[in-house]
This record gives sequence, structure tokens and C-alpha cells, in this order.
Amino acid sequence: MNTEKVISDLQKVRENAPLVHNITNYVVMNSTANALLSMGASPVMAHAVEEVEEMASIASALVLNIGTLSEKWIEAMFKAGKKAKQKGVPVLLDPVGAGATTLRTDTAKKIIDDVRPDIIRGNASEILALLKADAKTKGVDSSASSDDAVEIAKELAAAKSCIVSISGKTDYITDGKSVVAVANGDPMMSKITGTGCTATALAAAFASVNKNYMEAAVGAMVVMGIAGEMARQNADAPGTFQVKFLDALYQINEEDIKGKIRIA
Amino acid sequence: MNTEKVISDLQKVRENAPLVHNITNYVVMNSTANALLSMGASPVMAHAVEEVEEMASIASALVLNIGTLSEKWIEAMFKAGKKAKQKGVPVLLDPVGAGATTLRTDTAKKIIDDVRPDIIRGNASEILALLKADAKTKGVDSSASSDDAVEIAKELAAAKSCIVSISGKTDYITDGKSVVAVANGDPMMSKITGTGCTATALAAAFASVNKNYMEAAVGAMVVMGIAGEMARQNADAPGTFQVKFLDALYQINEEDIKGKIRIA
Amino acid sequence: MNTEKVISDLQKVRENAPLVHNITNYVVMNSTANALLSMGASPVMAHAVEEVEEMASIASALVLNIGTLSEKWIEAMFKAGKKAKQKGVPVLLDPVGAGATTLRTDTAKKIIDDVRPDIIRGNASEILALLKADAKTKGVDSSASSDDAVEIAKELAAAKSCIVSISGKTDYITDGKSVVAVANGDPMMSKITGTGCTATALAAAFASVNKNYMEAAVGAMVVMGIAGEMARQNADAPGTFQVKFLDALYQINEEDIKGKIRIA
Repeated sequence: MNTEKVISDLQKVRENAPLVHNITNYVVMNSTANALLSMGASPVMAHAVEEVEEMASIASALVLNIGTLSEKWIEAMFKAGKKAKQKGVPVLLDPVGAGATTLRTDTAKKIIDDVRPDIIRGNASEILALLKADAKTKGVDSSASSDDAVEIAKELAAAKSCIVSISGKTDYITDGKSVVAVANGDPMMSKITGTGCTATALAAAFASVNKNYMEAAVGAMVVMGIAGEMARQNADAPGTFQVKFLDALYQINEEDIKGKIRIA
Repeated sequence: MNTEKVISDLQKVRENAPLVHNITNYVVMNSTANALLSMGASPVMAHAVEEVEEMASIASALVLNIGTLSEKWIEAMFKAGKKAKQKGVPVLLDPVGAGATTLRTDTAKKIIDDVRPDIIRGNASEILALLKADAKTKGVDSSASSDDAVEIAKELAAAKSCIVSISGKTDYITDGKSVVAVANGDPMMSKITGTGCTATALAAAFASVNKNYMEAAVGAMVVMGIAGEMARQNADAPGTFQVKFLDALYQINEEDIKGKIRIA
Repeated sequence: MNTEKVISDLQKVRENAPLVHNITNYVVMNSTANALLSMGASPVMAHAVEEVEEMASIASALVLNIGTLSEKWIEAMFKAGKKAKQKGVPVLLDPVGAGATTLRTDTAKKIIDDVRPDIIRGNASEILALLKADAKTKGVDSSASSDDAVEIAKELAAAKSCIVSISGKTDYITDGKSVVAVANGDPMMSKITGTGCTATALAAAFASVNKNYMEAAVGAMVVMGIAGEMARQNADAPGTFQVKFLDALYQINEEDIKGKIRIA
């Protein structure tokens, strides 16, 4: 993985303003839209079963985020996901709260099996819950460390032929064979809601400009993490941090990435 | 159109704190409510078919925003819209994403025909989609310039006996005969989500204190644009801009309007 | 009521990061989640009838907030509420907009009768509407003063064996016998949306660490009010205030509470 690739992908997002279609949870719709706009993408939220296939067809990437599920939304996710796959539009799954309730775990698993997302991004508890029957998640926050979930992530990625991205203190991204570790970021990122959801949305923007989804997923975590570090330099508390994080997604440039990237 | 009118309408909003009933999209509910509060109005969001008529009846203005549609919400919009019209409560339509999907285009057109909104506010792509069968919208962002849409806006306003307000680099407001151009604003406004939705909500607040809806629509775009310019003086990036924009809606006063207004 | 109790409860929230399950309105989901995270709790939003019982069972407190009702959500509130009560998980009701529409008033009353919430927190108009048939609410903002509602609050608390917390210029918390008045806070708090909803969510976090719900409700209003005062020192307008309020919830410490608490 090469720093230049992250930089050129970010540049492409800013030049093309790819349309990212999000079927996502109510809590983060606003912050996700703003993060995508700040980085240079063009977000749209649409969940009606009557329109999701049409919207997914004109999108450059599709995010399925199960953070506030209900019956109709699940139906819409399958419709949109299948249409996107048919059209070659990259599909990303964010299994928010998998492991916390049966509905979430089962829906996430079924999306993986039936839709075949290209990238799955979650925290350690969520990723563990997708393969281990006894994994438990505390609501939507991880009770496991990302280090513990790497082997499961590799297994999942290999079994489902997709990229799995686990975020945590260190982020791990794997295609089932190799693993890239991203050590950027700041603990303050876990004190604002929707950070993980934003990571998935940014990965969607990257996937829309780079068909190597491993690189796309890594690029998104690098940009997230560095933006978090930049925000933290100007913020001691979560309210200000949230504002400065959006600023950083807008301002982050070649030098920031070159100077701060920490991947292995 | 006269500067004093904008100033006195804003003053009336602040004195009366009119109740603005919004049936709007999930993405912007929070930012719309905060914008209305900052400017001095009293927002309420209610979408249940069981209560929208009652809420619209006690409201001073009603906003129908189709940004995240679904079946039940469409039903609620028609119910609320018809009741509001019956009661003489001004109705505003924001055709978010018209042109992007059939559901949105058709719903917007049907609301226009059946409910007869007093003011329609959208970006150029959306307004074009309401009259031209081949108009295309990229998600919810405009792919056309507001200058291109003026003639269509006039035609629409004349055909439906309403005010049409197109926002863009220059905003154009028309009653089908005359056109007022508002040149206030800042490009940073397009880097945060929901700016257009906020414009519609502010127009609703203005319409609740001024039955001349042409003046109301112009006043809202002037206040929006100047608040954007004020915010931009204290912000170089979208996170901070969003915060300063709310501050500006609260702080904007007579001198700001007199000194910065740019209408023709 | 004792200052040390507020301090130690806040400390416990920060140590235990209790899971607060919110079935709340769309407008405030993001700000409520962020407020809970800033104070040290762990928020989760889940509303699907298929999962609310499971989520409520693993939660440390449950918030039922009727701010944007619809049929399915009401069903979910009853399911979650009853399961929580069965499991000994504290249940809080926020009757947003009770008095404004029949649906809201009736749903709030039915939740009180059937679920038996441990704490009800609302503004004066909402609390009045729960007992007086002729009380009127202007949308979701109070048209009555909290002072006027104290007697009704006492009556309600006694009749339903719960704590009633009325917020306003002065907040009053009662168990039907005694009344505690909290005079902390700042008028700017009413210029941002969801302040009341945040108060209810913070009370849920307190109730999860202190089974004396009177103390929990008082503690939450003290922390809210002091955080508001702290935010106001660094903010002259609502946009900035909102940011600084989240910062203050994160930063508020023993000295802040000791120095600023105003209860009687």
C-alpha cells in the first residue's frame, strides 16, 4: 500500500464528487452527509423501496448501515444492494450493533450472504459477531479490541471474498490473505457518535474511485485517522472536536497525509 | 422589493416566534430546527398521519420536504398540506432530489397539483425536473445553474399560481411575471448538508408573517445569503462554517441587512 | 439532596459507561447520542419491534421520547417499556409535545398508565397536558412557566408513584411529596433544539447508577444546568453554544458542581 495512492484517490474524490447513496441510520445521517461533503463527495440518503433501485443505479457507491433497522428498511437494503451489485456499483456494509440483538446479527449475516458486499467495516465486537455465535456487543460500542478480531476478519474476508475493515485503536484491513494495519487516529473519535459510520461512508467514496477495494478501505481509514489527529490538535472536548473533524476532512492535503500516515 | 420589508419581517418572526410545522427529511431535521430557532421561529416536526392535520391547523406555516420519502410520509404530506390550505396556513414545498428518481419527481408534481403549495423552493435541477421530462438531478445536488432555470421557474409559477424560488450562485424568486435576483451567499454553503432545506424552512417563517409570499421568499433568501456571508468571515472550512451560520442567523440585524443586501 | 451525591453519580456514569437505550425522536437522535457520550454514558438507538425487548433487556436505562411518533414506534415503546420494567431497568418518559396533538397527549398518558415510567421529564405545558384536559402546548415549546406546573407535577407524581421533573427557568423535581428546585441553567438553552430531550437522556444515565430516582432526576438537571452555564461563558449565539455545551458535559468536574450548584 502506497501513500501516493491514498493521496491520488482523495484527489479523485474531490475532482469527481462521486454520488454516494446511503441507506443508513437516523442517528448519523446528518453527520455522514456532512463528512462526505467535507471530503468532496456528494451524499444522498434514500430508503423507500419504491426508489432505492433507481437511486443505487445512478450512484457511484452504496452504503448499507443497519444502525436503526426496521422491516421496510431491510427490504430496501436488499433491493438496493442487489441492484448495485448488478450494475457494478461497490456495496459497503456497516453492521452497526451486530451481536447486540438477533435482528442486527441476522440481518448483517443475510446481507453478507445474499448481497455480497465488497467491503464490510465494523468495530471488533461487530466483526466477531458475524462469525462467532457467542460474541456479544454492548449496544453499538465495541467491547473487544481490534487486535482480537484480526483472525476472524481474515476468515470472514476469505469466506465471503470481500474486504473486511475493523476499526479500533489500530485499524486492520484484510482481503483474507494480507492484512494492513492503520495506526492513525485519536481516542477522542470514540467520544462522538457515528465515527464508525463515517469511516464506512468515506470508504464508499474511495471505492467509487478505486476498484482495488483493499486500497480503498485502507485509504479511508488513513484519511479518517489523520483528520482525527488534525482535529485533536485544535480540540480538547467532543463538541469542538466534531466541528474540527469536519474542517480537517475538508482541509487534509498531500503534506498532511505524507507527514502523518502510519500504516504497516 | 424593499430592504425595510426584509428587516421588518425578520423582526416580526423574532417577536411572534411563529410555529413552523415541518414534514421534512431525516438528514436535516436537527439542522432545520436549529436554524428556525436561531432566527427566532418555533419549529415542530410531526409526520404521523394521525396527527399532522391537527398540528398543521395550529401552525403558522407548513413545510413539505421530500428528501427522504416513504409511503406513509407521502400520505401525511397530502393530509397536512390540504388541511393547511383549508385553514389559510401557507404551504411550502421543497422538491429535494426531484429528477433523481421517479418517486421524487412524481410526488413533487402530485403535491403541486393536489395541494397547491404557495412557495416552491429548490435548486435548478429540481425546478427543471418539475416541468421538463428529460431533466436529470445528481442525487440531491444540482447539476444545472440557477440561471438556466429562470424561464422554467417563471412558467411553473405562472401555471401553478405560486412563488418559485431557485437557489444557486444567484437565487431567483418569481411569481410568474416578475423575477427578483438575490446575489447574497457564499460557495461554502454548498459544502454543508441541508442548506437548501434550511432556506425553505426560513421562507416558511417569513411567509407566516407576510402574506405577500413573493416578499417572504425573497426575504428568506436574503437572510440566508447574508448569514452565509457573515459565517464565512469567521470560517475557512465546513465544520466551523455550520456553527457560525447558526450564530449568524441569531445575530443578523438591521445594519447587516442594509449593508450587505444584494437584490435586483 | 446533597452535592456530593451529584458528583459521585456523575463519577459512576463515567466509570461504568452505562448503556442507555433510546427510543426517541428523529430530530434529536444525534445530539442526544453525543450528549450521552460526552457525559460518559454509552447510547444506543433502536426502535424495531423485533429488537426493542432484547435491547432494553441489556440496557441500564430506557428512554421513551414521543417527539416524532408513528404507529409502529408506539408499539415498540410499549414493548420495550414493559420488558424494561420486568427486568428492573429504569424507564424514563419524555412527553414531547403533549398537549399539542391528541395523538401525543393520549400516547403519553397511555405509556404512563400501562408502562409506569420511573421518571417523567417535560416542560410545563407538557406536564400540565398530562393531567389537565384543557392544557395547550404550542408545538413542542412550553407556553406555561414551570412555576405554574409544580402543583400538577406533585399530583401526577403522587398518582403514578413516579418522579416528575419539569424543566424551565427553574426546574422542579418531585416525588409527589417533596419538591427540589434547581435554578441552574441559561436562557440560551432554549435556543437550541433538543435541550429537554437531552435532559431526559442524562436523567436516564443517572438513574442507571442511582436507584433513588429523585436524586437521579435532580442530578441530571444540575449537570445540564451547570453545563449550560459553562457553555454560555464561551458562547454568545446558539451555534457556538451547542458545541460548547457538549464540551462542558465532557469537562464538568467536582469543582464546577460545587461552585455553581443552585438547588433548594
